[in-house]
Amino acid sequence: MIVVMKAEASEEELDEVLAAVPKDKYDSHIFRGVDRTVIGLIGKGKDKETLKNRLSSYSSVDKVIAILDPYKLTSWNFKPEKTVIQLEHVKIGGEKPTVMAGPCAVENEEQLMTTARAVKKAGAEILRGGAFKPRTSPYSFQGLGEEGLKLLAKARQETGLKIVTELMDIEHIDVVTEYTDIIQIGARNMQNYPLLTAIGQLNKPVMLKRGMSATIREWLLAAEYIMTEGNHQVILCERGIRTFGEETRNTLDLSSIPMIKEISHLPVVVDPSHGTGRWELVRPMARAAVACGADGLIVEVHPKPEEALSDGPQSLKPDKFALLMEEISGMKNYLNRKISRNLQSVV
Amino acid sequence: MIVVMKAEASEEELDEVLAAVPKDKYDSHIFRGVDRTVIGLIGKGKDKETLKNRLSSYSSVDKVIAILDPYKLTSWNFKPEKTVIQLEHVKIGGEKPTVMAGPCAVENEEQLMTTARAVKKAGAEILRGGAFKPRTSPYSFQGLGEEGLKLLAKARQETGLKIVTELMDIEHIDVVTEYTDIIQIGARNMQNYPLLTAIGQLNKPVMLKRGMSATIREWLLAAEYIMTEGNHQVILCERGIRTFGEETRNTLDLSSIPMIKEISHLPVVVDPSHGTGRWELVRPMARAAVACGADGLIVEVHPKPEEALSDGPQSLKPDKFALLMEEISGMKNYLNRKISRNLQSVV
Amino acid sequence: MIVVMKAEASEEELDEVLAAVPKDKYDSHIFRGVDRTVIGLIGKGKDKETLKNRLSSYSSVDKVIAILDPYKLTSWNFKPEKTVIQLEHVKIGGEKPTVMAGPCAVENEEQLMTTARAVKKAGAEILRGGAFKPRTSPYSFQGLGEEGLKLLAKARQETGLKIVTELMDIEHIDVVTEYTDIIQIGARNMQNYPLLTAIGQLNKPVMLKRGMSATIREWLLAAEYIMTEGNHQVILCERGIRTFGEETRNTLDLSSIPMIKEISHLPVVVDPSHGTGRWELVRPMARAAVACGADGLIVEVHPKPEEALSDGPQSLKPDKFALLMEEISGMKNYLNRKISRNLQSVV
Amino acid sequence: MIVVMKAEASEEELDEVLAAVPKDKYDSHIFRGVDRTVIGLIGKGKDKETLKNRLSSYSSVDKVIAILDPYKLTSWNFKPEKTVIQLEHVKIGGEKPTVMAGPCAVENEEQLMTTARAVKKAGAEILRGGAFKPRTSPYSFQGLGEEGLKLLAKARQETGLKIVTELMDIEHIDVVTEYTDIIQIGARNMQNYPLLTAIGQLNKPVMLKRGMSATIREWLLAAEYIMTEGNHQVILCERGIRTFGEETRNTLDLSSIPMIKEISHLPVVVDPSHGTGRWELVRPMARAAVACGADGLIVEVHPKPEEALSDGPQSLKPDKFALLMEEISGMKNYLNRKISRNLQSVV
Repeated sequence: MIVVMKAEASEEELDEVLAAVPKDKYDSHIFRGVDRTVIGLIGKGKDKETLKNRLSSYSSVDKVIAILDPYKLTSWNFKPEKTVIQLEHVKIGGEKPTVMAGPCAVENEEQLMTTARAVKKAGAEILRGGAFKPRTSPYSFQGLGEEGLKLLAKARQETGLKIVTELMDIEHIDVVTEYTDIIQIGARNMQNYPLLTAIGQLNKPVMLKRGMSATIREWLLAAEYIMTEGNHQVILCERGIRTFGEETRNTLDLSSIPMIKEISHLPVVVDPSHGTGRWELVRPMARAAVACGADGLIVEVHPKPEEALSDGPQSLKPDKFALLMEEISGMKNYLNRKISRNLQSVV
Repeated sequence: MIVVMKAEASEEELDEVLAAVPKDKYDSHIFRGVDRTVIGLIGKGKDKETLKNRLSSYSSVDKVIAILDPYKLTSWNFKPEKTVIQLEHVKIGGEKPTVMAGPCAVENEEQLMTTARAVKKAGAEILRGGAFKPRTSPYSFQGLGEEGLKLLAKARQETGLKIVTELMDIEHIDVVTEYTDIIQIGARNMQNYPLLTAIGQLNKPVMLKRGMSATIREWLLAAEYIMTEGNHQVILCERGIRTFGEETRNTLDLSSIPMIKEISHLPVVVDPSHGTGRWELVRPMARAAVACGADGLIVEVHPKPEEALSDGPQSLKPDKFALLMEEISGMKNYLNRKISRNLQSVV
Repeated sequence: MIVVMKAEASEEELDEVLAAVPKDKYDSHIFRGVDRTVIGLIGKGKDKETLKNRLSSYSSVDKVIAILDPYKLTSWNFKPEKTVIQLEHVKIGGEKPTVMAGPCAVENEEQLMTTARAVKKAGAEILRGGAFKPRTSPYSFQGLGEEGLKLLAKARQETGLKIVTELMDIEHIDVVTEYTDIIQIGARNMQNYPLLTAIGQLNKPVMLKRGMSATIREWLLAAEYIMTEGNHQVILCERGIRTFGEETRNTLDLSSIPMIKEISHLPVVVDPSHGTGRWELVRPMARAAVACGADGLIVEVHPKPEEALSDGPQSLKPDKFALLMEEISGMKNYLNRKISRNLQSVV
Repeated sequence: MIVVMKAEASEEELDEVLAAVPKDKYDSHIFRGVDRTVIGLIGKGKDKETLKNRLSSYSSVDKVIAILDPYKLTSWNFKPEKTVIQLEHVKIGGEKPTVMAGPCAVENEEQLMTTARAVKKAGAEILRGGAFKPRTSPYSFQGLGEEGLKLLAKARQETGLKIVTELMDIEHIDVVTEYTDIIQIGARNMQNYPLLTAIGQLNKPVMLKRGMSATIREWLLAAEYIMTEGNHQVILCERGIRTFGEETRNTLDLSSIPMIKEISHLPVVVDPSHGTGRWELVRPMARAAVACGADGLIVEVHPKPEEALSDGPQSLKPDKFALLMEEISGMKNYLNRKISRNLQSVV
């Protein structure tokens, strides 16, 4: 940690700041520069953020700069091999991208089964579908609840697809866990710490969507909340961030994929449907996601988007989805993904 | 609702879209413009968002534009008189701004009582203090929990200040409600819909902080979630939004104050501490908040910011807080606040 | 254009607004909805933006909504075939992506010639290099000026590469035009209208970078400034936008590529170097750009990034650049780019 | 400057980085921490940004952190007394806020003279009005040019108001300078460095608007471009930044006012008209600007906003403007503005 004193700070003020550093945990080194005095702190105290805040509060201090990243369990330092989530024969984080597809919301049996069969046939391995839906307006369709979960289980039984569905609160943790293979935590709940802590105590993979305005640091720290409780089966999901852009629903930040791969062993998938909000952009952005190293995709597919109860404008029809699957299967030849801290796989 | 067809849309496609409009709820009017055909829909169907999404999903449709705002209970249309929250002698939304002040987190009895006495003396009417703390890192101080709530109650008993404190999850709803006068919903939980629904069933004022990247529309719709359940005692709190700015912790969007007053009867308070993240900016921004019509302030005060367990850099010392109280008390003479849909108060 | 009256607007106010519409240019249609009255305007007046502003200024008007996009020369409506820029044997907007590469700034002959030979050998067709450099600080290196242009011309002569370099002001228009094959307009000048108007009068291809916070609408309207003067050889360049992100220099908005291809016939290239600011991210994001349909790339390459006078951290060394060229040449098999308004090419 | 080596960096790589530091300009201090080695550089080399970039380019370097701010002429260090711009009897940066007001664009003599008389009567001291207008669309009204400047001069002669008007390019520098008292540089030109350099050579006050997505650092560095050429009469103008917000045209970042006053001696004024884009918000935000210490306001006023050729929706009518002038004149009693590095004025 680097403490930069103000230009006008006196020797007494410097001593006051030095006295505030816990001597048993940090060594202080003083530099006297041309304009400023700077203190370098070296040590391994546990709550560096608190110390940083405390030292920043002195009016003689200009700023305090953290040197090290705050990541522990999510970083390559903790685990030098790539994390691969395994659900029987389905892998996430392995050599080829895994595709999750299905409707935004489970609406009824026919809609779900038609979609499940279509995405299975096209090559998807995991079925998505919301039973509990977070909606901006209280006047919108809120999902079928447990009835929707049962339909998902039925589709799994018939097609062999694995299931991913959203959990919105601790109250429904048992019922959702009972039916699903992967628990989805939505963007709005990325910093719902009690919920993260609760699912950290399960033995079930979690797909953690990036918050609308979350930095990569905040996103990885949210994953740390889950992992510190013991559940290390975390999949990150980039779904677009909020910017000034007005033509797309969100701005899909694909650079987060290679950026996270520099820092973390966790797999990252991409949601081009929420990331753009427009079905015309889903295929090109899905290809781009694969090209920059995504470990998978989650794509909204609906047999009749114009009758969908939510997210119709960003849903692919089954034939376009099949085209997308073909396109990405033709891409694998040039991919070289990071499989451990220092190695790229050669596929 | 206005449906704009694509330039190349055929008559068959137009008919297909018209057939998708529920005839019992909407009248359709067709305009044939120079380049495009446009359909105007007039009616009062309940889930307009779903209809908008469905019509947008036709590939012959260019875009669908909603005409009316989605606000119901929060709007002046529903309630033409300003909402005033009353806690015995303390009012929020009345003729003068109400000040809430106190430490970010309750740390111990001495810290809390010293602060409570100081802010009371300076003129604050409500004591703030976090017992359950949402922290970005799982390795940071998470609050004293119920022990903190008890200290807040003790401070209330001694000073007569009312209490505002954060509720983070449904699990703690009973214990927090027992101790506090106003329930705070933090920025990270602004779209935690199960939590909003739960507090909507209480008879207790709620202070709803704006989410980090929430538009005013989303913020008011979050308030609708609480109000549709029956609890109409909602106070909005502007606490800064996330932008590209790097010098302040957030960007305090003060224009949201007069903007909301154009739309809604709910009172709005401002948090200049989180809004800026720097104590030097708290006083000027607090004055600015009052000058543009805020119904109150919530300000972090700590007797020794350099020893605070959280948010020291943005906390005022008691003497600076007293100065702020003096400054804003000198401002009331020019304020003319909106007290009903069409009236300004003359203070 | 749709004019939404306020709920409380009177008949007199409605008449006043109707009277303000130029009757020779627009037909007015009135809808009386449940809560509001809405006026639909159909016509082909030239300055619709002014009319929109004027009608918005009435206090009885709630809002005015434009129906049609403001694009003329940039849109598929104006030119239903894809624009291909041709510089002898080099095409931009053709069937395969065109690569521009070279140093951020021309520093000296050895640096430039070494780089030019290396990028030529790896397969680039156009050499980039700044002679006039826009720098945030007046205390940074500002470029070699005309001396730099002469070195670029020398590199062209030896290698056969075409040249792209930045023009910063009207004063240098003759000297830059004399040496370069493509004039680059930088992000900071995207809305420098006198400069856009001036280059619109040249017969020389222009690469127009997206402004840091420009919407797609503003970017295309900047291209309209050039095209209305007669110069239709415009290449758009996505180089990242400014967001709250702190880990990358900018946020590369790749969804702008397929979005623009929905609207416009102009070719679009991507700058993954400025778009990310980190060389580790350049290769994956360059692949992603090609995968979502970019017509080309512009990549910073430097033989010794650690000695570069600018942008070293985002420059590839020649060996990494060669690897990138290999990767993207392996990608062409699945690309299907839009070659006219309604057709995809099958490559 | 602090250089943080990567965890896996070898001793050879450390030596390589140390060798790249110019020994005549910087002393290097090495810290060996628990996980990382860190180099502290102390010295006064001139182009620190270049050194920072060069060191960042080593693959063994994790990051390089600048300690000092890059400001020179704009900072309190350079000039410990507040800058006051004096135009005969009119001061900007003095004890009370200075108000500039007038139409967005000069449209004709009657419109300008009516407005000038009205704003003069209400207490404004400077007349604003655009003769050269930067417009997003080439199809919008572009201003009257020199004819507009002549009308401004006529209004000055009659009313005694000083004039501020925008300069868009070097070509018009002589004609604009001849007529105006203050040269306005618009948001789109904030980083038009050739233009900044050119006006830096004049002896005429400049009002530099903040770019739409400029950080405070970039804004002050743009002012440094003007000041390094010799022209120290710079007024900064906050006019709102671009965010995700959709209800206002821009987000007025009022916290920039007290933030800049911490760093710089330059006066700062606020443009609540562009900052919000809605006349209903102009008065409250103008009051807020004054309350947080702005040295002045620039406000759009139009006798008939519904006939304005630009910016009608954000223009005040003369009677509302007069009300605003009254409101802010009642505010001065509590203002305590910074008049030198360490002093607040007591007004």
